[in-house]
Amino acid sequence: MKFYAKRLLLLFVMVLSTSFFCLAQEKEMLTHVEPPFWWTGMTNPDLQLLIHGKNIASFEVSLQYPGVQLKKINKVENANYLFLDLSISKNTKPGTFSIEFTKDKQRFSYTYQLKEKKKRAQVGQAITPADVIYLITPDRFANGDTTNDSTEDTQEKLNRTNDDGRHGGDIKGVMDHFGYFEELGVTTLWLNPFLENDQPTYSYHGYAISDFYKTDTRLGTNDNYKNLVETSHKKGMKVIMDQVFNHCGAGHWWMNDLPSKDWLNQWDTFTRSNFTNIAASDPYVSSSDFDLLTKGWFDINMPDLNLENDFLATYMIQNSIWWVEYSGIDGIRLDTYPYPNKHAMSRWMKALTQEYPDFYMVAETWAERASYLSYWNNDKANKDGYVSNVNSISDYALYYSLIRAFGKDGNIEEVYKTLAEDFVYGNPGNNKVFNGNHDVDRLLALLDEDVEKLKLSMVFTLTTRGIPQIYYGDEILMKNKRPDGKVRQDFPGGWKGDSRNAFTESGRTPKENEVFNYIKTILNWRKNAKSIHKGKLTHYQPVDNVYVYFRYTNVENTMIIINNSDKDYPTFSLERFEKSLEGYSKGKEILTGKSLENLQNVNLSKHTALIIDLSK
Amino acid sequence: MKFYAKRLLLLFVMVLSTSFFCLAQEKEMLTHVEPPFWWTGMTNPDLQLLIHGKNIASFEVSLQYPGVQLKKINKVENANYLFLDLSISKNTKPGTFSIEFTKDKQRFSYTYQLKEKKKRAQVGQAITPADVIYLITPDRFANGDTTNDSTEDTQEKLNRTNDDGRHGGDIKGVMDHFGYFEELGVTTLWLNPFLENDQPTYSYHGYAISDFYKTDTRLGTNDNYKNLVETSHKKGMKVIMDQVFNHCGAGHWWMNDLPSKDWLNQWDTFTRSNFTNIAASDPYVSSSDFDLLTKGWFDINMPDLNLENDFLATYMIQNSIWWVEYSGIDGIRLDTYPYPNKHAMSRWMKALTQEYPDFYMVAETWAERASYLSYWNNDKANKDGYVSNVNSISDYALYYSLIRAFGKDGNIEEVYKTLAEDFVYGNPGNNKVFNGNHDVDRLLALLDEDVEKLKLSMVFTLTTRGIPQIYYGDEILMKNKRPDGKVRQDFPGGWKGDSRNAFTESGRTPKENEVFNYIKTILNWRKNAKSIHKGKLTHYQPVDNVYVYFRYTNVENTMIIINNSDKDYPTFSLERFEKSLEGYSKGKEILTGKSLENLQNVNLSKHTALIIDLSK
Repeated sequence: MKFYAKRLLLLFVMVLSTSFFCLAQEKEMLTHVEPPFWWTGMTNPDLQLLIHGKNIASFEVSLQYPGVQLKKINKVENANYLFLDLSISKNTKPGTFSIEFTKDKQRFSYTYQLKEKKKRAQVGQAITPADVIYLITPDRFANGDTTNDSTEDTQEKLNRTNDDGRHGGDIKGVMDHFGYFEELGVTTLWLNPFLENDQPTYSYHGYAISDFYKTDTRLGTNDNYKNLVETSHKKGMKVIMDQVFNHCGAGHWWMNDLPSKDWLNQWDTFTRSNFTNIAASDPYVSSSDFDLLTKGWFDINMPDLNLENDFLATYMIQNSIWWVEYSGIDGIRLDTYPYPNKHAMSRWMKALTQEYPDFYMVAETWAERASYLSYWNNDKANKDGYVSNVNSISDYALYYSLIRAFGKDGNIEEVYKTLAEDFVYGNPGNNKVFNGNHDVDRLLALLDEDVEKLKLSMVFTLTTRGIPQIYYGDEILMKNKRPDGKVRQDFPGGWKGDSRNAFTESGRTPKENEVFNYIKTILNWRKNAKSIHKGKLTHYQPVDNVYVYFRYTNVENTMIIINNSDKDYPTFSLERFEKSLEGYSKGKEILTGKSLENLQNVNLSKHTALIIDLSK
Repeated sequence: MKFYAKRLLLLFVMVLSTSFFCLAQEKEMLTHVEPPFWWTGMTNPDLQLLIHGKNIASFEVSLQYPGVQLKKINKVENANYLFLDLSISKNTKPGTFSIEFTKDKQRFSYTYQLKEKKKRAQVGQAITPADVIYLITPDRFANGDTTNDSTEDTQEKLNRTNDDGRHGGDIKGVMDHFGYFEELGVTTLWLNPFLENDQPTYSYHGYAISDFYKTDTRLGTNDNYKNLVETSHKKGMKVIMDQVFNHCGAGHWWMNDLPSKDWLNQWDTFTRSNFTNIAASDPYVSSSDFDLLTKGWFDINMPDLNLENDFLATYMIQNSIWWVEYSGIDGIRLDTYPYPNKHAMSRWMKALTQEYPDFYMVAETWAERASYLSYWNNDKANKDGYVSNVNSISDYALYYSLIRAFGKDGNIEEVYKTLAEDFVYGNPGNNKVFNGNHDVDRLLALLDEDVEKLKLSMVFTLTTRGIPQIYYGDEILMKNKRPDGKVRQDFPGGWKGDSRNAFTESGRTPKENEVFNYIKTILNWRKNAKSIHKGKLTHYQPVDNVYVYFRYTNVENTMIIINNSDKDYPTFSLERFEKSLEGYSKGKEILTGKSLENLQNVNLSKHTALIIDLSK
């Protein structure tokens, strides 16, 4: 049974179980109970239920279940809300119980379910540098189910001719391409948000969420998403969920009936965020710049959630945990991390790792310098006392460096110089290293459409320290520049009737196949490359735009040589790297499969890279 | 009596006191005893004397003085050296004692003096953001004593026509211009190194030291330098000494007779440093890159000192302390800080602050990003465990930012964005903020000869956080680009017969006077501006190339507005800054002296800055 249908049924059962006398009234009374269900066996015994219904605050509330205590009934500004503080003691058994609402002669109940928390081993595992993340914009990848292209419960209908419109891609479309992911060699899927975005227009991107507990029906159902995670696990893949704490969509159900005015950050007139990520950590920030960042609205259609409101903060944290436990995801990517109240975010990180130690949480930290990023991933408290608890950040510093390095007239010193900053991070080995995403021009466009440089950037991204992430379509040379709708282009072959199917060799051009196969070779080698998964990094200062580095454990050693220059080296001497080559006499070059019988020098053509697994 | 003469006299007395029989031999025997004298009352009881003399290691050594113990006699590779470990107990009285050297029938002694350590209050005070440092290249500032233009004990003779030659400037020339410093309004003098550089050519810059205990005779004497410091103190000014630990000059006396091979970092063939400052902190550095930085020679004429040799490290540390105690300097600028062994440098910092708590030590850290610099000024241990102990760094990150900001088509966001990184530092308020020095093109050259932009860069340098430093001659619009000799240009009027005297109003052009007076106004106001000395900084994100910030204590508040744009604002609104203006109703503009009767808006012309002291 689909999850959402279940929720409705529960409401229906609840309604039936009350006296006929109140039926119509109660149906209006209880429009939301969230989280819709919960689990026993959580580390944190506390659970706070949001109850939404007409004048619900005027009701008495009670419940009876062994191990469950109703500790406090919180009323807020709006009498249509109650927040129930429950405590679920350690040995509480899974089951259901009634939450009773009474007022004078009126009486009704809600049946609340406590499921058994899964053992974490069952639901996945941490994401590590052994993984490669593949980012997909689900509306634009593949349309697996044409019956949900437009749905009754959502406003915006299919329009593939509109770059900013709904194109019909869905979870089923992703599910249909496990073969492609496996062939390409990525290990982890990250989808842009799949939760309901019921906005009249420009809703395909997913970041204007109108229901935090419901999959957008145009993409599928909660069950479909859970199935995607489970299937991924069966195939040895992992899934990252994209969560948004900073804002909701203007179409969110609570927008017509806020629990309290301070549920949102309200302004007298519409006030947009300054988008100045660095204001969140700037020791000299003016309060007005800080407020603009953290309280300004992301857009007219994206009201700013006020996480200083504890009920809302708890709501969002529980929602996040709910999705981990419900769907079994392996990681979370948290949108616009510096924008919401940072103390609430730190509380979230703590709550999540309390339930799921080592859980992978990557913060979107869109700031161009390692120093800024280090504020969010520091193993020590920051100077202002702030402790972020984030265990991975989006390495925008390295992203911009690699774009400069491999871009027109670029020097590969750029990446060397940025990696040399790594001592500022708590855990740089966990940084998400990426060469593209849904918010920037396509990689190939930024590299001046130089396919060889794109290949070099892939070698770097996939062999340097950190957890790499690539963006769907870059492997088949998508090359649009922004606006966003152009970047988030439909994958050819994802739609019935497409003129070609780039998911298959025959549907790709020779150039596309060359690049696809190049990346595929690296990725499939990388799946078993322990030097990359667990190895240290030693690099040599680039000379004449040639960068050499080693990834190595006690037993594995991989040498990577990237010639980013316009010069051919028929005999590129390895003498300068002798310390790192000590004890090794031969190698196997991964991209060509060729053996190297000596390590004195290599043939290094311009704009090529060598990945050499060394052996004794 | 000049210090050096004293040393010779002591040697002479020693020689006389021994039997005639050994006279000739002993004179050769004892060529160096360093430090030449020391002090009682130091916190660290240990003193290690370097004794240099022919076959000195074959002698027995003894001494008798209450409180002084000869703990250990260290022999090294070269029998011409001894290192004597002395311990000077807490209550030892000042005085002299004989160090006796005996071997068979030979016997002679050296009279060693222990002076009384001065109370620190007598010799100066810490350098703080209340100060402004004026950097002088002493050979190029003013020739106060023409009798020492060429000297007998040094090889390179006066040649003012050679950009890289000796021009005759000296300590006396600096002493002659206290009136100028006072008028301009700087508070602290930093001279490039004044120690002997007895090289055949290119010796004027001072960084190829041939005797760590002797002032270059072409600049003056140790006594002259000490007098400069004492006179500065009398005039309320302070002095920073430029010290060099990384290398010495090829003309150093020990180069013909090294204590041990490992006194220097030796290479089979001449090997230059890679000058890659960031290799010192790079967590992924290859050992060869690291060795090139730390062990490569600065130049053919600048051998690399090996501070891993404990005798040498102790020698250098004692030399540094010797100069503090001898001359009474207020601060040290340490050359090429990341180059020498960093653990020895950390030991130096510790030793120095042990003797002189809060002593100002600014490390030359020539790296362009705040992250790199933070490795050297961090109040916590770095990730690799390294603790630098440096209390100030040369803020090259902010330097490059301000050059970009005020340079052609620059945006003032550059400095805002770099200041926002300040949380990475242990103590950013102590960073040395500079807009020029002897190693880079002249400020005016880098600002495309735009005098208005130079003025703006001065406003910024002198009002942002940190301890500002300017380079002599920038106030009179020197504008040469490198090579170095061109940048380190003679100050007009510093030499008899100069066609004009730019130290005086009448010797400056109208444009020079305009800029001189502009800087002078800021500097003289700054002398008493507590908001700058002790105030916090709050800044507002620049809009359209206009940057507004406040420096404030509980009682003072200064608003700085820098219009770096090409746009005039007849009524520039201050509404956006109302939080910082709360409680203030008027102001006084420092550069024009005008009063502001309301704080709604100000007249802000293009390329101008306003410094407004606010009042209730």
